[in-house]
Amino acid sequence: MDIALLLTGNELMSGDTVDSNSSMIAQSLSPNGFSIACKSTVGDDLAFLVEELDRLSAKYSVLIVNGGLGPTVDDLTTQALAQLINLPLIKNAQAEEHLKSWCAKRKVELNEANLKQALLPQNAKVIDNPVGSAVGILLQHNGCLILCTPGVPSELRAMLGGHVLEILQQAFPNAKAKLIRRLKLFGVGESQLQQLIEDQITQWPSEVVLGFRAGLPLLELKLEIGNPENLALRDRCELNLREIVGDFIVGENDQTLAQILVTQLKAKQQRIALAESCTGGGIAAQITSVPTASQAFETGIVAYSNITKENVLGVDKKLLLEKGAVSQEVVLAMAEKVIKISNANYAIAVSGVAGPDGGTDEKPVGTVWIAWGERNNLMAHKFYYPSKRGVFQTIVVSIALDLMRRYLLGNTQIPNYYGRTKT
Amino acid sequence: MDIALLLTGNELMSGDTVDSNSSMIAQSLSPNGFSIACKSTVGDDLAFLVEELDRLSAKYSVLIVNGGLGPTVDDLTTQALAQLINLPLIKNAQAEEHLKSWCAKRKVELNEANLKQALLPQNAKVIDNPVGSAVGILLQHNGCLILCTPGVPSELRAMLGGHVLEILQQAFPNAKAKLIRRLKLFGVGESQLQQLIEDQITQWPSEVVLGFRAGLPLLELKLEIGNPENLALRDRCELNLREIVGDFIVGENDQTLAQILVTQLKAKQQRIALAESCTGGGIAAQITSVPTASQAFETGIVAYSNITKENVLGVDKKLLLEKGAVSQEVVLAMAEKVIKISNANYAIAVSGVAGPDGGTDEKPVGTVWIAWGERNNLMAHKFYYPSKRGVFQTIVVSIALDLMRRYLLGNTQIPNYYGRTKT
Repeated sequence: MDIALLLTGNELMSGDTVDSNSSMIAQSLSPNGFSIACKSTVGDDLAFLVEELDRLSAKYSVLIVNGGLGPTVDDLTTQALAQLINLPLIKNAQAEEHLKSWCAKRKVELNEANLKQALLPQNAKVIDNPVGSAVGILLQHNGCLILCTPGVPSELRAMLGGHVLEILQQAFPNAKAKLIRRLKLFGVGESQLQQLIEDQITQWPSEVVLGFRAGLPLLELKLEIGNPENLALRDRCELNLREIVGDFIVGENDQTLAQILVTQLKAKQQRIALAESCTGGGIAAQITSVPTASQAFETGIVAYSNITKENVLGVDKKLLLEKGAVSQEVVLAMAEKVIKISNANYAIAVSGVAGPDGGTDEKPVGTVWIAWGERNNLMAHKFYYPSKRGVFQTIVVSIALDLMRRYLLGNTQIPNYYGRTKT
Repeated sequence: MDIALLLTGNELMSGDTVDSNSSMIAQSLSPNGFSIACKSTVGDDLAFLVEELDRLSAKYSVLIVNGGLGPTVDDLTTQALAQLINLPLIKNAQAEEHLKSWCAKRKVELNEANLKQALLPQNAKVIDNPVGSAVGILLQHNGCLILCTPGVPSELRAMLGGHVLEILQQAFPNAKAKLIRRLKLFGVGESQLQQLIEDQITQWPSEVVLGFRAGLPLLELKLEIGNPENLALRDRCELNLREIVGDFIVGENDQTLAQILVTQLKAKQQRIALAESCTGGGIAAQITSVPTASQAFETGIVAYSNITKENVLGVDKKLLLEKGAVSQEVVLAMAEKVIKISNANYAIAVSGVAGPDGGTDEKPVGTVWIAWGERNNLMAHKFYYPSKRGVFQTIVVSIALDLMRRYLLGNTQIPNYYGRTKT
């Protein structure tokens, strides 16, 4: 069923705080069948708050309010509620008891400001807050169930996990849980993907809702059904998708390319070494962000300067001069040398022009050579992704990880990443 | 002046995406006198979108819409606009031209799905998108100026910095800019900072609004005035703050620690080398993310394994065995060796226990030794920040950069980062 969300706080309007609470609420309630249909955010302004409470409670059967329950003057939620239902704020015995025991436990004196939090609209019920001083508030208005929750994320989390879902499920026992399947893709753009699906799947069943979430480096494909009876249908859809774009599907849920690669290497009990120029340690940082990476990663050389390529990696000076740092020969030499130095099983090497400076007609900004593979079986390929420095580095790191992931799957074909013409 | 914001996307309703776009919009426009008064978020639902467009455009003089401009079937903003103003979607020549040149530049084929992005409501004007395929849309409806912007953050950022503000300022030349001064701090927490200010500044003038934005690794302090007459007062407040927390203020506006360090090194025409264990290339990646880093950065060795510390860096095997990889002796040797290998002027070396495994009673997860300085003048210090792996790595990368930043300022004292007891 559809529910509405009302967030309040000046810090949300000024942009000083990025709102992660509404995502937390949605992620907690929506799989249980309570979807956020509309979300409104207003500052700490009484008139605006009352107006939005009125508008949303008239339209939805459930309204969750977040924020404005604190002890300071800019916390206005209880006042706005009282005005909405036209009943006074009175001292709520349960809320007062909660405040007293909360303060006692922390050996804090119960002050005036805190006591304000015990004043609730008449007829309101208390929702227990297991971690904070502000209780939640539950009331009915015009056939709408209004639940007010605290803005402090840790308090919200505790309340969501406990009473909020319980209250909703009791009030709406027929709300149906959703069954969601998430696939992660790399190397295909949203429009390219959509086109592929449109071209190749003539009839998509309406029972399976297909969603996309664009992201760099990974794109998410979501298959959602509302009824467990449609599980087999969803599985067929997934199979169908895998036939079309299987090549680009790298994992599921929150997996990253680096995680997947570390898992592959650990399964083989083998290690990788890296020689990075234009990505400047970005591949190493991704791999080592994965717990237990030490079992899969041996050495990384950030060979940013030619001197480092020569002195640390041992790339032939003549090769660097003749072919240039951004060349097939040099990147292959970098990979070969780092395997030799580290005695790792696999290697990735990259050398490119990240920009904004350093481009030439022959090797413009966005040009990159990547080498990957293992001792005696190294490959190299040139790619061209002219973008801002940060985006270029992210894409190159990801392509390098993906090429190695594919290699470990026995796939040595160069994919047509993002539908670009192969270079 | 007050403006309204309408965000669209199922991923925002499901909580799959935390909305940082509205914060970006507010941070870009509000200092220029355009404050977000109300923010509404709806899913990819045509009826909802039209309803909200109608409601908000009736109430505000400016409505900024974000999202729904992409090529896929769930991108509905143009359709909703057409329905709102009751005019058809027609092929817009300027948008088509933009798409063609965008695709040509990237050697991508212009497909059906992409071409959908050239269909705009009749009478709509194009807002140029310097980085993405989706153009922005500008139109007037019922006395409200509606600006539609893309949901991809990098595209939104480019459009905000360019045309959006221009359009608003042309339409509303009297909007009063706020005068905001942003300071970036590293190594001090929000509550710690607040306490410092409360304890040491007895009277803060009400004309200067003080704001905080917590973040990792940098915290932002904002000094805001509405009237240029109060500039001198704001400057006095800043001076006051600098006296109290000057040590932790690293820069201004969007500066990062890596940027500041690269600038310092370039000014000296000297270079740095890195030997990283537990940060796994994270320091190198931060430094090389800065354009022109090649003028300041020489070599990075990701010496994750002891074999690498020994074979590539040349750390004495006996030292590694006797003192352990996470020790003062080893981290100093790493810094010394990487200077020798690279012939750089400065070095940072780190070795620690990032976890979740690998901790011991003597060296628990969160322990890290950092060495920094220059040839013949290297220092080392032990820190302890038990946190999740990712947070630990971020903090250690930042402390390392900050210690070197301070060293280059001639400051070799070890700060009491985050108020922790020195170890």
